[in-house]
This record gives sequence, structure tokens and C-alpha cells, in this order.
Amino acid sequence: MTSKVNLSEKFALFDKAWTPKIAGQVNDMHLKLAKFRGEFQWHSHEKEDELFLVVQGTMRMAFRDREEIVEAGEFIIVPRGVEHRAGAVGEECHVILLEPATTVNTGDGAETEFTVKDLEEI
Amino acid sequence: MTSKVNLSEKFALFDKAWTPKIAGQVNDMHLKLAKFRGEFQWHSHEKEDELFLVVQGTMRMAFRDREEIVEAGEFIIVPRGVEHRAGAVGEECHVILLEPATTVNTGDGAETEFTVKDLEEI
Repeated sequence: MTSKVNLSEKFALFDKAWTPKIAGQVNDMHLKLAKFRGEFQWHSHEKEDELFLVVQGTMRMAFRDREEIVEAGEFIIVPRGVEHRAGAVGEECHVILLEPATTVNTGDGAETEFTVKDLEEI
Repeated sequence: MTSKVNLSEKFALFDKAWTPKIAGQVNDMHLKLAKFRGEFQWHSHEKEDELFLVVQGTMRMAFRDREEIVEAGEFIIVPRGVEHRAGAVGEECHVILLEPATTVNTGDGAETEFTVKDLEEI
């Protein structure tokens, strides 16, 4: 793929929260777009780091001992093994996720209603 | 690193064009910040895809047969093996680069005045 991608146009194509869409691949990493509403579930990834770049709204990233409020134009990297729970501050936030193609959104634990394993490309 | 990073604050810390700074690592990928002015040099990477996400200004990505104009809020992925030449439209643009940690900015050819091999962290 060597055509440019407009983030706003891609985010306008879906509404459902917590369903990351694959917008690109860079070697073995996926760039995914997701909308967050409310709070996700606690989880961690044994082998995968995850980057969250907020492009609209405000995200709360909770760790077991603290939380970070991440605004549009800011990112946070959650290293492998670190328990975390993402959520939106306010109604909704739009987030770019960057993580290995192998990453499952709910981490290494049992599948839940949040688990999405067959991600759509967008 | 589990502290958030503000892109504007990081871009304000340096001025020199074509000197990518490492702002984070996600598994074996580096997230780099760079300022582009004028045109870079033609090059390609045999094994590495590269993502360019524009956060301020406008970027021109030239390929041998065409070019793409990439605005703030847009990204383009240059697949491995594809010759390309990045540049700024207008005075300057600010770009997030996402690529394997092994990637050298001037590609697989001989080193030039543009080559930066020991990247600073920012």
C-alpha cells in the first residue's frame, strides 16, 4: 500500500467501540484504529508492547498503581507484562494502536465479550 | 516507559531537519520524530517498511512514477523495496516515523551527508 490514509475519513467509517480496525501494516506490526467508550477490562500481554496515540478526545490509561490522562496529540507505550485498562474520559476518544500483528486486544487471559480476534481491515 | 509523551513538547526540543529522534520503542520498532525541510534523497530499504504520519505541515512523498501529498492527520506506508524521496511542501513539516529499529534513514545505499546512524533519544 503506497496510498496515503486520512485518519478522520477512516474513523468516520465505523462507530462501534472496542473493535480495532487494521489500517496498515509495517513489517510485523499492525496500525489499528479504535474508538473507546467507557472502560475496557484489565489485561496484559506477555510478549507485546502496545502504543496508544490519541487523535481525538481524552483517554485514561489505568495501571494498578496510578493512571495517566492522555490527550489528543499525546501517546503512551504500555510495555509487555504491565497490567493496564484503557478507557475514555468523557463520551468517546479515537486512538491509534500500534502493536504486533499477534496481539489480542484482551491480552493473555481467557476470552471475554470484549475479545476481537478477526479484525477487519479498514 | 509508561509515562505519556506530548508530541508538540517533543518537537519543540529540536530544530535540525532530517535528524530523526527516538521517542519510543514498541517491540522491535522505533517511533521517531523528525522535521523535514526541502527534499531528502532517493533511497529504499530492502527489508523494512516505513510509516510516515504527518502531525504538522504537509509532506510530499515522491515515488519513481508519482507522488503523494500527505497532510497533517494523514499517513502513508512505504513498503520495503520501494524507492522513495520525502520532502516538505512549504517551509517545514513534522512527521512521526515508525520503522524497525534497524532502519537507517538513507536506506541500503552508501552513506551520504544525510545519513544519521546514532540517533538521539528524546
